[in-house]
Amino acid sequence: MKLLEKTLGKIKSADKGIEQWAQNRVDNLIKPKGSLGNLEDLYIRIAGMSGEKYPKIQKKSIIVMAGDHGIINEGVATSPKDITRIQAVNMTKGVTGVCALAKQAKADVVVVDIGIDGELPPCNVIDRKIRYGAGNFLNELAMTREEAIKALEVGIEIAEIEIEKGCNLLGTGEMGIGNTTPSAAIVSVITGEHPIDVTGIGANLPQDKVAQKASVIQKAIEFHKPDKNDGIDVLSKVGGLEIAGMAGVMIGGAAKGVPVVVDGFISTAAAVIACTVEPKVREYLIPSHASEEKGAVIASKYLNFEPPLHLGLRLGEGTGAAIMFNVIEAALYMNAEMLTFEEAGFIVD
Amino acid sequence: MKLLEKTLGKIKSADKGIEQWAQNRVDNLIKPKGSLGNLEDLYIRIAGMSGEKYPKIQKKSIIVMAGDHGIINEGVATSPKDITRIQAVNMTKGVTGVCALAKQAKADVVVVDIGIDGELPPCNVIDRKIRYGAGNFLNELAMTREEAIKALEVGIEIAEIEIEKGCNLLGTGEMGIGNTTPSAAIVSVITGEHPIDVTGIGANLPQDKVAQKASVIQKAIEFHKPDKNDGIDVLSKVGGLEIAGMAGVMIGGAAKGVPVVVDGFISTAAAVIACTVEPKVREYLIPSHASEEKGAVIASKYLNFEPPLHLGLRLGEGTGAAIMFNVIEAALYMNAEMLTFEEAGFIVD
Repeated sequence: MKLLEKTLGKIKSADKGIEQWAQNRVDNLIKPKGSLGNLEDLYIRIAGMSGEKYPKIQKKSIIVMAGDHGIINEGVATSPKDITRIQAVNMTKGVTGVCALAKQAKADVVVVDIGIDGELPPCNVIDRKIRYGAGNFLNELAMTREEAIKALEVGIEIAEIEIEKGCNLLGTGEMGIGNTTPSAAIVSVITGEHPIDVTGIGANLPQDKVAQKASVIQKAIEFHKPDKNDGIDVLSKVGGLEIAGMAGVMIGGAAKGVPVVVDGFISTAAAVIACTVEPKVREYLIPSHASEEKGAVIASKYLNFEPPLHLGLRLGEGTGAAIMFNVIEAALYMNAEMLTFEEAGFIVD
Repeated sequence: MKLLEKTLGKIKSADKGIEQWAQNRVDNLIKPKGSLGNLEDLYIRIAGMSGEKYPKIQKKSIIVMAGDHGIINEGVATSPKDITRIQAVNMTKGVTGVCALAKQAKADVVVVDIGIDGELPPCNVIDRKIRYGAGNFLNELAMTREEAIKALEVGIEIAEIEIEKGCNLLGTGEMGIGNTTPSAAIVSVITGEHPIDVTGIGANLPQDKVAQKASVIQKAIEFHKPDKNDGIDVLSKVGGLEIAGMAGVMIGGAAKGVPVVVDGFISTAAAVIACTVEPKVREYLIPSHASEEKGAVIASKYLNFEPPLHLGLRLGEGTGAAIMFNVIEAALYMNAEMLTFEEAGFIVD
């Protein structure tokens, strides 16, 4: 608990003075005022987070948290559990979706076993296993409160390691068969929307099984009665280890003034948790792609996210975050390369 | 006319056999089928355009066409005409919006004077001036039919020069004070929508002057009665030189099997022209950002474009195309770096 408490205590609001300076510079660049839309906002926000007038990305990392879910015993996923373990290892070989997109964006991919239900062969997956998969939360805890805190702290620790190495742009990703179910449960509890309105097909669940998936979530919420104002309670009762880990990355980034790019549905559910634990975290989060999952739309609205990438992605892993890294760098190039009217010696004759 | 006719004759449909092969590969990559959305489509389409199973971007160029507009005498723009000339020169100094974003995307910016109303100082703007600005099409031709053809041919020529240098990804951009007016006129004529429904604020025109701008367009269309099935007639009567030049770039790219990324409203209006001249050009066009201009929404619908970048951009210059280059490269990295289930030796135990 000490690391979590200590880290939460370090989170400050973004620097309004720098934001003001940045807004003024952007308004004077040689273009019609406001005409670079989101790019302007991204630069201004990152200036405020970092406290730098000319922020420059030094190193980018996508942290992929991997964990399993006992809830898959209720028929909420089509893929077998082993895929989590196999794909976590594949992540270290550069051959999965997020690896390909991270390579394009010149970002590192860091893979963490925070709760895979199985043993991994020797490989570059970082071992921070808290338990062998989350419990089947239909009738037991997903994890104890202590385990939820520990999982948040793993996320903080890994974020800090990356930042220590020079990383100043983080992204969250995940691998966990079944994890759209705890994500939908979290979003339902915290936003107050009915499970059926936040439950979708995940990784190609047949449409006729979606109602059953929503029903499992509804029963679990009725059974556990999670406290919607206590993110750790929600994690413990209907969450997932990798979701907690990603929330921890967001908390860890926020404490160091480092922007954290939120990927799709699962990452957005983690953001809902992180912002419930500490609302100031929101200031350090950058949405990326508009996930096709119903629950993601509701979670985004709740967080006041307007994800700018409409690419029809529904893979997770951090794929949308990787693409967004390019957009963020474009925003910083806008500031670094463009001149103001004054700098350009603009004299209209 | 010879170059235009010859080039139009070379445009073939994309290779359906390669597209089929690419679709099959994408369906077998280690991810749920369809889960990389637009990235899958982009790779499949570019494979079909290029005839390559593993296309790789060698060199990227944004061609910025610059030209002026006599129609600004009717009070349809707030910025003075000289901005076109000044910004065209600034484009060659790397200090404008598109230059900053192209630098991030490692793309070249090629600037062409196709119709600036003024003399340029010695600089790297390519001189292909056809006339000193388009005519005030409220009561005269924007350009003669011969000039419109010449402008299309300039676009083809510049596209060919870039492709000859190794470029296999093109983007269109423009600089031309007043050019949302001819763009709206083109979109109105060809889609059949009323001028008021395709006319917006452009570069910060006060909202109370938009009706007057739409009225100018309506009068011009009534005066000239352009033939909506003849793209060259539309260009000549209510178009612009830089719009014709961009349409030429699209035709030139299509003839060589090179994808052309379409930027915002003005570029989309040019795409409407290019596809009216030769509908097969559509197969080589890739939309980028969803422009805020009303006419862009209508033109995109007409072309069956669903621009994936919702960034609130309304600068033009090719800025959205530059950002889209990253997304396209990510799609090609997906194909190049990810393994299929078979290649990964996927055995679920």
